[in-house]
Amino acid sequence: MTKTLIPLNAAIRAAASAVGKKEAEGPLGKLFDLRDPDDRFGSTTWEAAESEMQRLAFNTSLAKAGVTDGGIGALFAGDLLNQCVGSAYGLLDFDIPYFGLYGACSTCAEGLLLASMAVTGGFFERCASVTSSHYCAAERQYRTPIEYGAQRSPTAQWTVTGAGAFIVENADQSQNSAVIARGMAGKVRERGIADASNMGAAMAPAVEDTLNRFFKESSSAPQDYDLIVTGDLGFEGGTILCDLMRADGYPMDGNYTDCGQLIYNRKGQDVHGGGSGCGCSAVVLASYLLPKLEQGELSRILFLSTGAMMSPDSIKQGRAIPAVAHLLEIVHR
Amino acid sequence: MTKTLIPLNAAIRAAASAVGKKEAEGPLGKLFDLRDPDDRFGSTTWEAAESEMQRLAFNTSLAKAGVTDGGIGALFAGDLLNQCVGSAYGLLDFDIPYFGLYGACSTCAEGLLLASMAVTGGFFERCASVTSSHYCAAERQYRTPIEYGAQRSPTAQWTVTGAGAFIVENADQSQNSAVIARGMAGKVRERGIADASNMGAAMAPAVEDTLNRFFKESSSAPQDYDLIVTGDLGFEGGTILCDLMRADGYPMDGNYTDCGQLIYNRKGQDVHGGGSGCGCSAVVLASYLLPKLEQGELSRILFLSTGAMMSPDSIKQGRAIPAVAHLLEIVHR
Repeated sequence: MTKTLIPLNAAIRAAASAVGKKEAEGPLGKLFDLRDPDDRFGSTTWEAAESEMQRLAFNTSLAKAGVTDGGIGALFAGDLLNQCVGSAYGLLDFDIPYFGLYGACSTCAEGLLLASMAVTGGFFERCASVTSSHYCAAERQYRTPIEYGAQRSPTAQWTVTGAGAFIVENADQSQNSAVIARGMAGKVRERGIADASNMGAAMAPAVEDTLNRFFKESSSAPQDYDLIVTGDLGFEGGTILCDLMRADGYPMDGNYTDCGQLIYNRKGQDVHGGGSGCGCSAVVLASYLLPKLEQGELSRILFLSTGAMMSPDSIKQGRAIPAVAHLLEIVHR
Repeated sequence: MTKTLIPLNAAIRAAASAVGKKEAEGPLGKLFDLRDPDDRFGSTTWEAAESEMQRLAFNTSLAKAGVTDGGIGALFAGDLLNQCVGSAYGLLDFDIPYFGLYGACSTCAEGLLLASMAVTGGFFERCASVTSSHYCAAERQYRTPIEYGAQRSPTAQWTVTGAGAFIVENADQSQNSAVIARGMAGKVRERGIADASNMGAAMAPAVEDTLNRFFKESSSAPQDYDLIVTGDLGFEGGTILCDLMRADGYPMDGNYTDCGQLIYNRKGQDVHGGGSGCGCSAVVLASYLLPKLEQGELSRILFLSTGAMMSPDSIKQGRAIPAVAHLLEIVHR
């Protein structure tokens, strides 16, 4: 079997996040760079608001990095909207070669993995990755417009209104202390879950697959990491994952969490299964995890974004949900 | 300004194509590997048929290459369906790390570019790229179900029912004679075209941008190539591109064509503006252009897949169409 572990050498030079009202009111609220009180970001449609979040987050990351778009060799971007229009319109203003991605909520790690490969391989000096999701745009596309006030099931997850942007560069040419040292792309896994209100359950086996493969190929174990953090399994999927990993002989006791569990206050914010969306892992990584890695408070983590790759049509056609989980090992150096 | 030309060293070890009835009846019909007389590929929905085309095309490419899925380090795949379910379901059976892409009809070149970077950079020995589109699935998603019999405008393009699969490997370890020697990712360009029935016009400026950048950065000119072939500008967009390039001082006289112009018989097949779709450039490259490159009949071409990245919603919201064009220089060695 071909080895699938990818050695990387990419420093995260800068990161930025933009979020909506609910995210700003959550436990990590004060950490995000930009917060909009009505989730509209000055736009007249939710889709345009999502694009504007991407534009703002990316602009902020450029400012933090002290570079202009001419200094970025390639952009890797994606979102949940049909035909990924959030990214296509949001990043249109930037004069940068563009790779469009679709990995559902796994897109943050997918983009960072490809951007890291591009700078590690010497193809570009510096690359960027931008991803987003918007609760109102996602609800009307995947489920029903929010005006309907549809009831949500207990395992349903709340799509994060947020965009995260990252600028990575070859670590040999960088002063930054958070470095993506290894990566692993996920394999698409489908274990029979066809309930779009329980994406955590559909995605957990994909994470299990990637984590098992990573621990085997790298001869490491969960205990070697300060934290193993998934993107948006939420409470249901996170619990399932811990059970699966324990059964596989890789118990993650005390060092596992999930961005979808961190971003909202479960009791006070009525989010049922926790957060999800391409923006979920992106803003939590950008504003909560990365500062801890930069300051050395965390020295070594595994970060996985997880995607449920069904469409509203595939659900109506009765198909189970395929999922994927991409992994990054991020270290403080 | 950062250099955006990407030096590559990726041999195309094998390629395969699967197409529908209309494509099989076109001028290139006999060249395709698999042809289905009713466009269903044994499936009960058009979306599942598209997935099945991907599965068949990829399986055929593996067989031609003489490798199993264990020999492929990563898959780069995408299609036009919402949430790219064509690829997610079509490639589910294969035990290969998966990078999902969305570049509209530019996905073929985007996938090959990323796969080539992955093998050139030494991340994997061998990678694959698979893309598809299906006329009936695309019509009902982007426009109206075919049963409505809606009238088409003269500039409207016909979405190709087809899937193309490619296996690339580091050229130093390969005996194959068709080599991707350089690449360039497109920048997203929008020039005010908001007519989804004239995607060629929307995409031509994106191709112009990439070609101009390529000729400048590589100090080359159109005359240095046997053929410059775009993915699916069709007749309208192809004519616009030639006008634009002439005005830019890079006339492409006698060595320009477009996969969307090649795949159908314009007079006899009622296709108006020509072919389009992620499958268009993929099957023409796999079954028409590559054999000519392998045999040395073509020694040096520029191949560009072109994508119009609007969604049905963005069109209804009155937004103009953003487009992107990715370029590959493919040579006979």
